[in-house]
Amino acid sequence: MVTRTELANAIRFLSMDAVEKAKSGHPGAPMGMADIAEVLWRDHLKHNPANPSWSNRDRFVLSNGHGSMLIYSLLHLTGYDLSIDDLKNFRQLHSKTPGHPEYGYAPGVETTTGPLGQGITNAVGMALAEKMLAAQFNRDGHTIVDHNTWVFLGDGCLMEGISHEACSLAGTWGLNKLIAFWDDNGISIDGHVEGWFTDNTPARFEAYGWQVIKNVNGHDPVEIATAIETAKKGDRPTLICCKTTIGFGSPNKQGTHDVHGAPLGAAEIAAARETLNWPHAPFEIPAEIYAAWSARDKGALAEIAWNKQFDAYRAAYPELAAEFERRMQGELPAAWAEARDAAIAKIVDAAQTVATRKASQIALEAFSPSLPEFVGGSADLTGSNLTNWSGSKWIDAAGNGNYISYGVREFGMAAIMNGMTLHGGLRPYGGTFLMFSEYARNALRMASLMKINPVFVFTHDSIGLGEDGPTHQPVEQVATLRMIPNHHTWRPCDTTEAAVAWAHAIEQKTTPSSLILSRQNLPFVQRDAQQVQDIARGGYVLRDAADAKAVLIATGSEIELALKAQEALAAEGIAVRVVSMPCTNVFDQQDKAWQQSVLPAGLPRLAIEAGVPDFWRKYVGLEGDVVGIAHFGESAPAGVLFKEFGFTVDNVVAKTKNIIQ
Amino acid sequence: MVTRTELANAIRFLSMDAVEKAKSGHPGAPMGMADIAEVLWRDHLKHNPANPSWSNRDRFVLSNGHGSMLIYSLLHLTGYDLSIDDLKNFRQLHSKTPGHPEYGYAPGVETTTGPLGQGITNAVGMALAEKMLAAQFNRDGHTIVDHNTWVFLGDGCLMEGISHEACSLAGTWGLNKLIAFWDDNGISIDGHVEGWFTDNTPARFEAYGWQVIKNVNGHDPVEIATAIETAKKGDRPTLICCKTTIGFGSPNKQGTHDVHGAPLGAAEIAAARETLNWPHAPFEIPAEIYAAWSARDKGALAEIAWNKQFDAYRAAYPELAAEFERRMQGELPAAWAEARDAAIAKIVDAAQTVATRKASQIALEAFSPSLPEFVGGSADLTGSNLTNWSGSKWIDAAGNGNYISYGVREFGMAAIMNGMTLHGGLRPYGGTFLMFSEYARNALRMASLMKINPVFVFTHDSIGLGEDGPTHQPVEQVATLRMIPNHHTWRPCDTTEAAVAWAHAIEQKTTPSSLILSRQNLPFVQRDAQQVQDIARGGYVLRDAADAKAVLIATGSEIELALKAQEALAAEGIAVRVVSMPCTNVFDQQDKAWQQSVLPAGLPRLAIEAGVPDFWRKYVGLEGDVVGIAHFGESAPAGVLFKEFGFTVDNVVAKTKNIIQ
Repeated sequence: MVTRTELANAIRFLSMDAVEKAKSGHPGAPMGMADIAEVLWRDHLKHNPANPSWSNRDRFVLSNGHGSMLIYSLLHLTGYDLSIDDLKNFRQLHSKTPGHPEYGYAPGVETTTGPLGQGITNAVGMALAEKMLAAQFNRDGHTIVDHNTWVFLGDGCLMEGISHEACSLAGTWGLNKLIAFWDDNGISIDGHVEGWFTDNTPARFEAYGWQVIKNVNGHDPVEIATAIETAKKGDRPTLICCKTTIGFGSPNKQGTHDVHGAPLGAAEIAAARETLNWPHAPFEIPAEIYAAWSARDKGALAEIAWNKQFDAYRAAYPELAAEFERRMQGELPAAWAEARDAAIAKIVDAAQTVATRKASQIALEAFSPSLPEFVGGSADLTGSNLTNWSGSKWIDAAGNGNYISYGVREFGMAAIMNGMTLHGGLRPYGGTFLMFSEYARNALRMASLMKINPVFVFTHDSIGLGEDGPTHQPVEQVATLRMIPNHHTWRPCDTTEAAVAWAHAIEQKTTPSSLILSRQNLPFVQRDAQQVQDIARGGYVLRDAADAKAVLIATGSEIELALKAQEALAAEGIAVRVVSMPCTNVFDQQDKAWQQSVLPAGLPRLAIEAGVPDFWRKYVGLEGDVVGIAHFGESAPAGVLFKEFGFTVDNVVAKTKNIIQ
Repeated sequence: MVTRTELANAIRFLSMDAVEKAKSGHPGAPMGMADIAEVLWRDHLKHNPANPSWSNRDRFVLSNGHGSMLIYSLLHLTGYDLSIDDLKNFRQLHSKTPGHPEYGYAPGVETTTGPLGQGITNAVGMALAEKMLAAQFNRDGHTIVDHNTWVFLGDGCLMEGISHEACSLAGTWGLNKLIAFWDDNGISIDGHVEGWFTDNTPARFEAYGWQVIKNVNGHDPVEIATAIETAKKGDRPTLICCKTTIGFGSPNKQGTHDVHGAPLGAAEIAAARETLNWPHAPFEIPAEIYAAWSARDKGALAEIAWNKQFDAYRAAYPELAAEFERRMQGELPAAWAEARDAAIAKIVDAAQTVATRKASQIALEAFSPSLPEFVGGSADLTGSNLTNWSGSKWIDAAGNGNYISYGVREFGMAAIMNGMTLHGGLRPYGGTFLMFSEYARNALRMASLMKINPVFVFTHDSIGLGEDGPTHQPVEQVATLRMIPNHHTWRPCDTTEAAVAWAHAIEQKTTPSSLILSRQNLPFVQRDAQQVQDIARGGYVLRDAADAKAVLIATGSEIELALKAQEALAAEGIAVRVVSMPCTNVFDQQDKAWQQSVLPAGLPRLAIEAGVPDFWRKYVGLEGDVVGIAHFGESAPAGVLFKEFGFTVDNVVAKTKNIIQ
């Protein structure tokens, strides 16, 4: 009969040995949390290793992602498709076991973690998604959505500001199926935390409305089990505070920061084998330990039981069941394409001159009725971002609704959106001012890295926001968002482009999108049917001219200026083409033929955008020019600022003549 | 005899009328906090309107910066050089009164606020600076550094994650002279906050180790005064929780979000005049109210008294007094230039091959003894960032020391550094991984916008960090940092460039710098004396070649590759020049002659950098090429990754040949 400690030691030695073999990594957290993991994963976690995408599985998030060998060990031991060779390839190119758990690499990794604080925040999003889907799909006698979200987190996550944003909301939302284990080991990279982390964390979480279970010995399976039982019964999210020893089992290094982020070394690992009485060679796990760890039988039974439940649900509610499956698979409704085309056609016909933030709201109004998976929201700027529509219902205590006021928490919002997306069944979008994309920036990157598809709505996109001044006036933000790999940054110029941008964002499966929208009104631009189609190519000829001598490239609010300059130049006998480039990322993905048809070789180019000019050199080259803003804005009415900073027909005409000569 | 309420009403009407005249702005907070401001500014704030740079003044930070008319009203009424015409020009171009308080525009504005949560964080930095300077300069019987830091903040600041980071540290550091007033009005932009802000804020701050004074009626001067007296006696930072009515005095809009961020309208302002019995015309303040508000006499006396104290201090400690004055004026030591040159010469002679993070530490070791104002730190990565040196002393409870472990709080660290810099007397630098510059990003921008000079140290700068994988591998970060206006982003290639970059950063008065440093070793590069000088130009010819057919431009870790490719090409009879471009921002400031001497027109160019390629088009144009990374990294040893992603001599040689043809 193997003991719980032996089972936990399997994690410890897989972690020590893999880090040693890779010559880098973080053994301390897996060794410290192994006992907690053993109790949770063997006795409580609902999962089926044979089907990591079972919709009703519990979600497990390792928010202290540097302890990746903990989750890899667990996935391997419980029977996921992650072999001992995969563990031996820890941190090697093309392995399933990168240094931090990466979504899409090893089965069973629910989210990419490593950037601290974002894992717990993703988990808040997952727990919220569970609650909302339960409200939408469960029926009396048919509880088809019912799972917990479990989180491991360390001191680092608790120090990060985003943990405040996320855990505050989790309390407000009463996410009782969210259960987090704090690895309270008193150590961070700089050493013992007393010098920089003196929060009374239990009191802090009680202030958020959490159930807090204090003083749990994280190496005592009985205490851990009792805490979990209490947590599951709570009507609020739970923080289980586990006192642990980092690097538990390393006789000379445990309890110090030496064990945090470096291999222990052969001698110390040998000593640990003595200490923990683990005579097995590296990567050798005795069969009885594998047998005791395997979750394959139990997991298969659990899923079979749920499948039966779901069959009964399908019989009683066939349409709901089909809708649930569609949404969990991330498929758009069958009628989507038709609804989209009809909506865009209507928007084109209406020919409204509005701010593009309003154009975005018009698109939401048109598309949302077809997309029950849509969950809108804003970081306390609903009336400014215009992220709501007539069907928006603020979520209530039971999880009903489709709209969320996230409060002034941009980073939290974005990482919660990522978590909801990862959970499946919902398509979140959320808004703030473009400037505060900076507060959320690493969550946008994480969405891009994970190849998921939330939609970020960023309004008040330039000096055009006017009097609020330089703290609120984006100058470099559009350009820098465009530089995130696998991210689509759209800056539409009118209602039509806004609708097409929204549709494109909705249709992405593996790419998040940011929609960059104006505060101020922008004139509607007439296009023929082909041009409306071409918007989705990211860049297209908006107004051509026979025998053009130059190309003016513009986006968003500067399209109006480009068109006026085109007229002024025409009046002087100078023909120029105007190209609208609402999404450079998508334009860059087009074939060369398209790109050259839009930007013919040899024609000089002038880019016009109320942002940092350097970005545009990739299109205009050294011979072209840019009307941009290479400095911060000022506080003044928008019209005054555009004039002050050279966004005038005269300036564009002069610069165009310059590049032609 | 004017009443306190009448004095507060002066703020209310200046705010209402200025917002009305500007047709935009935020009247709600100034109207709600006017009574608090009256008590604080008239009875407690130590300041001299005639000398806003008096070193021992109290610092006042309006963290809810959208309420800018509150501080403008206070500065005007108490006698700063801010006229009634300045108030009438609220939010107009070239006025002293932009929409949010901008550092450097109106005298008495201690920091730029608006991006929520950063004001309170700046204030934590100011209070820490006060404590550290007191420890360094005060002597028995000579308390020349002794002032409070006061903060107004709203619900938005408290929701933001950065408030957690900053206030946790303020508690740990025991900053008892930091006193914050929470404008607890229950309203944010989306409406009544109950749906998204349910924290028990007093309990939260008690968990941080603050003194919390609850349930203060923010419209009762006696309660406010009592709270302030209690706060001043505390041995910990204090949060005074003030129940207020947003837009107090607006009979039909107060207590609602309608009053938050829009003009009240003429009718409502007229009604407020009735309600508050304020018969005066817009921008007319009765003489007796001006008289009661003026702080000029009291302020002059306060400064005179301090000057006497300082004279006594100077008599007793002439060197300390001179040093204090130098540091508060932000001047470098007289011996700096000599020390710098000697240090750089020594580093050049040593010719060490080390990681540039180590090169940075070597530079710190060389420069820091000359710079007692230096305050180092790291967001829990000291041993990785190598931000410490042999003279580093961790700050203690009394504020002694010159090194800070900020914990895992990147954004908090950066905004605290901004606050310390704004206070004066200290030159903070702080480190984290380059990836987590993203968590701190808006604080870097705020430093740039405010024209202040902290130094940010970002290590582990590319795929060269290896196994930690894509979550930790910067790809787009260097390029995007370069796009922040008024920010110097340095990416040195060896010990010499690292030392020059540090020296350049130290010598900036109005520009912050980011130093981008490698995890891995980079070979020392030999240069002649002129080349060492030229590094400070941001870009220079590192290895020229007669009859060069192309220019290879590289930075940091890719310099080694460029030099090897140069050799390989030379072996094939193809001469190319190698340009090192450690700081594009500084290179762009050089005169055209220099730029053209480095990058001669007509020579094709290839840029080599382990980051997103598009940035480099501004130098290589459309005809040149870039060896870069347009996608995320992977987890693997660094050498494997560089090869996998094309950072090989063969690839550089092939691409060079391509652009030559």
